[in-house]
Amino acid sequence: MAVASRLPSLTSLFTSPSISRRSTAVLLHRSRHNFRPPSPPSQLLAAGFSAQSAASSPPETEDRVNNRKSGASQERVNQDRDQVITPRSQDFNAWYLDIIANAELADYGPVRGTMVIRPYGYAIWEAIQDYLNVKFKETGHSNMYFPQFIPYSFIEKEASHVEGFSPELALVTVGGGKELEEKLVVRPTSETIVNHMFTQWIHSHRDLPLMVNQWANVTRWEMRTKPFVRTLEFLWQEGHTAHATPEEAEKEAMQMIEIYTKFAYEQAAIPVIPGRKSKVETFAGASKTYTIEAMMGDRKALQAGTSHNLGQNFSRAFGTQFTDENGQRQHVWQTSWAVSTRFIGGIIMTHGDDTGLMLPPKIAPIQVVIVPIWKKADEKTSVLNAALSVKEVLQKSGIKVKLDDSEQRTPGWKFNFWEMKGIPMRIEIGPRDVSSGSVVISRRDIPGKQGKVFGISMEPSILEAYVKDKLDEIQSALLGRATAFRDSNIVDVNSYDELKEAISIGKWARGPWSASDADELRVKEETGATIRCFPFEQPEGIKTCLMTGNPADEVAIFAKSY
Amino acid sequence: MAVASRLPSLTSLFTSPSISRRSTAVLLHRSRHNFRPPSPPSQLLAAGFSAQSAASSPPETEDRVNNRKSGASQERVNQDRDQVITPRSQDFNAWYLDIIANAELADYGPVRGTMVIRPYGYAIWEAIQDYLNVKFKETGHSNMYFPQFIPYSFIEKEASHVEGFSPELALVTVGGGKELEEKLVVRPTSETIVNHMFTQWIHSHRDLPLMVNQWANVTRWEMRTKPFVRTLEFLWQEGHTAHATPEEAEKEAMQMIEIYTKFAYEQAAIPVIPGRKSKVETFAGASKTYTIEAMMGDRKALQAGTSHNLGQNFSRAFGTQFTDENGQRQHVWQTSWAVSTRFIGGIIMTHGDDTGLMLPPKIAPIQVVIVPIWKKADEKTSVLNAALSVKEVLQKSGIKVKLDDSEQRTPGWKFNFWEMKGIPMRIEIGPRDVSSGSVVISRRDIPGKQGKVFGISMEPSILEAYVKDKLDEIQSALLGRATAFRDSNIVDVNSYDELKEAISIGKWARGPWSASDADELRVKEETGATIRCFPFEQPEGIKTCLMTGNPADEVAIFAKSY
Repeated sequence: MAVASRLPSLTSLFTSPSISRRSTAVLLHRSRHNFRPPSPPSQLLAAGFSAQSAASSPPETEDRVNNRKSGASQERVNQDRDQVITPRSQDFNAWYLDIIANAELADYGPVRGTMVIRPYGYAIWEAIQDYLNVKFKETGHSNMYFPQFIPYSFIEKEASHVEGFSPELALVTVGGGKELEEKLVVRPTSETIVNHMFTQWIHSHRDLPLMVNQWANVTRWEMRTKPFVRTLEFLWQEGHTAHATPEEAEKEAMQMIEIYTKFAYEQAAIPVIPGRKSKVETFAGASKTYTIEAMMGDRKALQAGTSHNLGQNFSRAFGTQFTDENGQRQHVWQTSWAVSTRFIGGIIMTHGDDTGLMLPPKIAPIQVVIVPIWKKADEKTSVLNAALSVKEVLQKSGIKVKLDDSEQRTPGWKFNFWEMKGIPMRIEIGPRDVSSGSVVISRRDIPGKQGKVFGISMEPSILEAYVKDKLDEIQSALLGRATAFRDSNIVDVNSYDELKEAISIGKWARGPWSASDADELRVKEETGATIRCFPFEQPEGIKTCLMTGNPADEVAIFAKSY
Repeated sequence: MAVASRLPSLTSLFTSPSISRRSTAVLLHRSRHNFRPPSPPSQLLAAGFSAQSAASSPPETEDRVNNRKSGASQERVNQDRDQVITPRSQDFNAWYLDIIANAELADYGPVRGTMVIRPYGYAIWEAIQDYLNVKFKETGHSNMYFPQFIPYSFIEKEASHVEGFSPELALVTVGGGKELEEKLVVRPTSETIVNHMFTQWIHSHRDLPLMVNQWANVTRWEMRTKPFVRTLEFLWQEGHTAHATPEEAEKEAMQMIEIYTKFAYEQAAIPVIPGRKSKVETFAGASKTYTIEAMMGDRKALQAGTSHNLGQNFSRAFGTQFTDENGQRQHVWQTSWAVSTRFIGGIIMTHGDDTGLMLPPKIAPIQVVIVPIWKKADEKTSVLNAALSVKEVLQKSGIKVKLDDSEQRTPGWKFNFWEMKGIPMRIEIGPRDVSSGSVVISRRDIPGKQGKVFGISMEPSILEAYVKDKLDEIQSALLGRATAFRDSNIVDVNSYDELKEAISIGKWARGPWSASDADELRVKEETGATIRCFPFEQPEGIKTCLMTGNPADEVAIFAKSY
């Protein structure tokens, strides 16, 4: 193996800023996890997903030579096509796509704009599901499943809904070899079919509230696509509820955006801003849309989750009625709310850096990677045994841990590989560590020596407590860093000129707003920014609309967005 | 409430065979859980799903009157449309549909042949998922997600695959308002797109085995549909693996059918027969198909899960190759395997009886229902407190328990309702029970007095142990009963005449078989039975083909099937 006895001086080979930070790109060249966009079928040329930068071919390095020594064949070297992650500061979009490819989060599907979610990306989705699924059930929702094929006529029933969705529909027109009499919409969202079914299940006020959720795929024929952020098909959960009163529906819509907010802050370490959408940006068919808006590393906004108070819009269109306590027939009051695989894009773009992905511990499929280090054969057994026992200790205490004991890669390669994959913490164990009964711990979020602590005891109770404590610290640090970044990039504005200035330098603008929809659209046209939300958290005091000078009740946040 | 002080003599009101068994249908008339198939949109008339028998309107009963006393309004009574479950022995199909409707497992979607999986049915699916998902991961598989839209040209690449699936395809021909240049297939199964992606991820033998799974919806344009058993869209998991050798692929295919078998026996209490499909019945594109075949209550067979050894059929069609240890390019050896929401139909049709659904405890979303019983207001508090504390005790020990403390229904109504829903165990607590610190326990699988035990101590450790023990006993009893039923309905045959005789009286026929595909098709034509499998468990000794008299290596099982 490349690293000899793992003396402190050798350890520092991987940690001194001059080598580890600078050499990251070079080391990453050796990733065997090669990404190539599929050769696009002629008729299905990928329009939206940009292919990533071409791979370069650096010369063989010492590690490669050592790989040879450990028995790798020439074929192996051929296979290890090299890969660079474009620096984030250089080209944010290329950086994003490079991370997705190199960390094996997703790949392009054969149909334009579709995405294959690879195991590592899907594991992040499972972490999102695990958390939200419990919260949904705790708040009284049941999972179920609605068919994805919706009669076209359903979509037309709610006026603004059809207006919003008809340009994005995928239509099934042939089934079982025959032209269908009525074309079928592949679910873009389920409000229509949900209402069709609710009319059959809801009779009396005692059937209310009816609160369900489904985990499903949805299809929207987007023209400009980007993995995770906007794809032709994506995975999400969609909650649908029906209530007897508008107050209950409003409470539910607020409750769900609060659950999303809590999830974003406490699990994904994303300091989203929750608020209400402007009328222009409200969901097609909703009375009110609540949103959580996240600031990405390039300072563009990402709508990361929404909760809609649908009022009686769909229940009136579909006749979803109940008999109230006085025997009167009434239309139900409804909500719907969703979080999708887009959130994974939000995690990448909030925390990632030039080295690659950086995952908050509570979302990370692997929280701790153990890299054993030995040179001589007689060291191997004791190092591996120590690594295994550390793994068991951590696993037993519920920590998601991976022991990378492969002999085909050097420790240096592994350090860089797992940093690129965003694992929050690394534990290094070499022969010296075994002798002293201790390990070395490195944090993903603090590069180099600063993030490295030597001599943490292997004693189970000490190690477990230390690791848990550090993971919590990392979780908080990521949220803290993202919050500071967000706050330093929001500018309070009091005039349209100030707004334009803020947007033009890539910041978010927050200012009092009571102008018209037309004014809002003008801002979009002239600056590229939209109202992301009227945040729930509002400043005190008298406000004057930045556009009209009229009194304003609220400030709005404007930003360019994904 | 209807039941006064719940003296033993009153308790027996619900348990004496003369009342409880005979009155089931009458009591079920009062189910408020009314099922009505949706009025079919004119152009989408439900062809395959048969509507259930018309509801009858029995006269009001004492319970209904008592409901009134407890404050129910006239509207309430109107809402409680009555419902009967057709006796199983009378019409198995109507019985099946009645259970699905009354137990609220599923409902008809607006598009012919589609199904809405309602919360109670979906909870059974979640129990299936929870078990299998863990087993898949334990055996080294990762979850991921492939797009559901597949270019039509992919389907055509594997000859027998396109032959098998093309009649069942749903095609998207319009996207985003435009006619597509290449029509897209809505995933009927994913071997083709999986291979397209595998070619990009597999380079060397070190990339193998590649073992993934996805939980997804699939679409097959079936003409004859039946909820859960065969629907236009259904949910499933599909595993896909690639290996370096045929031996590894075979081992994997066998491993997965074994996992399914174990699941069927130990969780679903279904004594499936695992075996190999005949060539005629093999999956379109597979070299070998392994299956688990279950005998339903009407003695028809249900294919409940399959595992395919795909050989190199898809890898040759798609060019899925790897470089072996000697530097040679080779096609990978593959498997795929699936279990779907059809399994829920299998559970219903294996265990259900005239009373309704009967769920094995390990699959039941609710394992124990507690029904508190009181008459006088001063009894209510102590009874409810006792019921609550029993609930907490059981919940803490991991038992899925529901306390039905609604005041709008009588205990008698609740007994019947939860029996119909298939809850394995009921705990009754009345004032006398509170005084004596004990409860009454009834088993769903043993009707009447025989299944009822009085005076089980409420003392937490005793109660918990008793309940767990009984749930295990019920689980075993269901498997035992189903196994006895299965075994008494399989006939060993040695000639075609014996086979025809067995099939004609509704049984399964097991006999030596080495005849041709044409002979197999002739059996199907003449008897309606197909080879369900060549069971793994084979009798010893010399065998002579029942059809040809030639030597035979194996016995096959013939049966009519879903």
